[in-house]
Amino acid sequence: MGDNVYISEKELKETFKTILLNHKVDENEAESLAAVFTSNAKDGVISHSVSRFPLMIDYLDNGVIKAGTMPKLISSFTSIERWDACFGFGVTSANFCMNRAIELASKHGMGLVVSIHSNHWMRAGYYGWSAANRGYIGICWTTTRKNLVPWGGTENQIGNNPLVIAVPRKKGNFVFDSSMAQYSWGKIREYAADGKKLPTLGGYDQNGNPTDDATEIDKTYKAMPAGFWKGSAMSLILEAAACSMGQSDTVIDNDKYDNIETNMTQVFIAIDPKKINDSYSDDNLERIVQSLHQCPTKEGKGQLRYPGERALVTREKSEKNGIEIPRRAWEKLKALK
Amino acid sequence: MGDNVYISEKELKETFKTILLNHKVDENEAESLAAVFTSNAKDGVISHSVSRFPLMIDYLDNGVIKAGTMPKLISSFTSIERWDACFGFGVTSANFCMNRAIELASKHGMGLVVSIHSNHWMRAGYYGWSAANRGYIGICWTTTRKNLVPWGGTENQIGNNPLVIAVPRKKGNFVFDSSMAQYSWGKIREYAADGKKLPTLGGYDQNGNPTDDATEIDKTYKAMPAGFWKGSAMSLILEAAACSMGQSDTVIDNDKYDNIETNMTQVFIAIDPKKINDSYSDDNLERIVQSLHQCPTKEGKGQLRYPGERALVTREKSEKNGIEIPRRAWEKLKALK
Repeated sequence: MGDNVYISEKELKETFKTILLNHKVDENEAESLAAVFTSNAKDGVISHSVSRFPLMIDYLDNGVIKAGTMPKLISSFTSIERWDACFGFGVTSANFCMNRAIELASKHGMGLVVSIHSNHWMRAGYYGWSAANRGYIGICWTTTRKNLVPWGGTENQIGNNPLVIAVPRKKGNFVFDSSMAQYSWGKIREYAADGKKLPTLGGYDQNGNPTDDATEIDKTYKAMPAGFWKGSAMSLILEAAACSMGQSDTVIDNDKYDNIETNMTQVFIAIDPKKINDSYSDDNLERIVQSLHQCPTKEGKGQLRYPGERALVTREKSEKNGIEIPRRAWEKLKALK
Repeated sequence: MGDNVYISEKELKETFKTILLNHKVDENEAESLAAVFTSNAKDGVISHSVSRFPLMIDYLDNGVIKAGTMPKLISSFTSIERWDACFGFGVTSANFCMNRAIELASKHGMGLVVSIHSNHWMRAGYYGWSAANRGYIGICWTTTRKNLVPWGGTENQIGNNPLVIAVPRKKGNFVFDSSMAQYSWGKIREYAADGKKLPTLGGYDQNGNPTDDATEIDKTYKAMPAGFWKGSAMSLILEAAACSMGQSDTVIDNDKYDNIETNMTQVFIAIDPKKINDSYSDDNLERIVQSLHQCPTKEGKGQLRYPGERALVTREKSEKNGIEIPRRAWEKLKALK
């Protein structure tokens, strides 16, 4: 799968930070953004780290993203709040909002923040890990631009609305992080670059027929929902729930931004399971893990993993060997001024 | 698709109620259970109404379900509560718990109830409709018995954990109601009875190979997760989140009940979007509906539907023509004493 470099956490973080500082992001925000991008790469999510960073810098230079902008409270009612991200960095506002949901949960058992006018938050799972690391169940999802064909349709008319559910566990959090498309664009392009077929149907060809041909799907930019009608319906309901709470623009209204990835609505929920359990334990989660690890598999397929386990394994590898990055992505990043 | 009868709402409800009364369910609970079963049939969900009712009566007769049992509060913290359903009717406790989550939401903006030791709640979507009908966003999910093969595995080791997300809308609520399997057992058996192939892969044959042969899948009882690895991971995270909050048994522990459908953990969340929006409107949801209805489709496929639209259409038909029920299921119900 191509040529990779191995970069230390320190060097990668410095690289991100220096570029941000050069683009007039202030010291504090540059430090905090660089930390998130580095953490995402360390967990193996290069697509929403090194690979996506240059586009974010473009958006910053073009004024789509407004540096130094913190979310402003619009309205609140006990355990739920509505915030305006004011088109700041998506990572900045998402970090802020999950932290705020956790504060609310520490007071009320549960907290919910809906944030409107936000930008792309990069790796959705980051905010789930962030909640689970502090002992909270974290749930979050986001609207996107029109990047998915609803089941039965022929045009991109819905978003792929990434959803995260994270559950704390001492020996390794459970973190589900998935968009509503069967394959991410990063994955489709990886298969296309290698000239390989996808393992299953993943989108539509130029005649509108379902296909597993990654190169065709990359051309048409028409991806298929995960679980066909199920992912399609789930995208729609996540959109509706977010925009109902946010009283915000939907994926349909994104046309006024020429369908670029901005003006997102994001939802953050934190729940403290210890608040309703005097002697909280994660022994029951342990039994799920054991059962998965012992589940019979077809020969040669290896052990099954719980959601989040792969990120943990990659994180440990990154600590040992440095962070693995495709050479081309690393060189593109280094070339940014 | 076989021979159907059309039964009035009144007759169907009386039929359910009479059987329940004959099995020593008290007047109030029989009335309320009959109403839910009738509503589910009216919306077209025969599988979790007429078809499932005889099995529920078996469970009642065998003492798996304890009639007249109301949930008991275990612990609470402001907006979150943990209840013990004490093995009462799943429908009774689920109704109670969603109502309780709504009460909490009316005080705190949002409420969450986790219920342990519950029985099968029949149609998951019912509780979402119930929240949305009152202007609340409703989210609920349940654990199940081991009825799904985790992706990469060869044995049923996870549940299909139905998930509901409902969003209120004046002209028709958005209600997503889906298990984590690509096809329900009801659907698989319907295709098997008709000797038809499933539209996509849906489970495994006797050699452990993926198949769209409904008859084979019905024999092996090995269904495939929706979206392959995605539905598999989502089942696991819904299980982990429910059992973390509930501090309850997981699908793995269901062995002690011989893997019958009991001892479930169920989660109910209600959110009041009006509490953070002075002038709440669902105009933005209207734009999603319009865009879907206008989405280009492959010729002859007809108009795309939002989640919940099909139930609404069926409900209107039921009101007009009576409730459509397969004759065999109706006769089986009538034969119950």
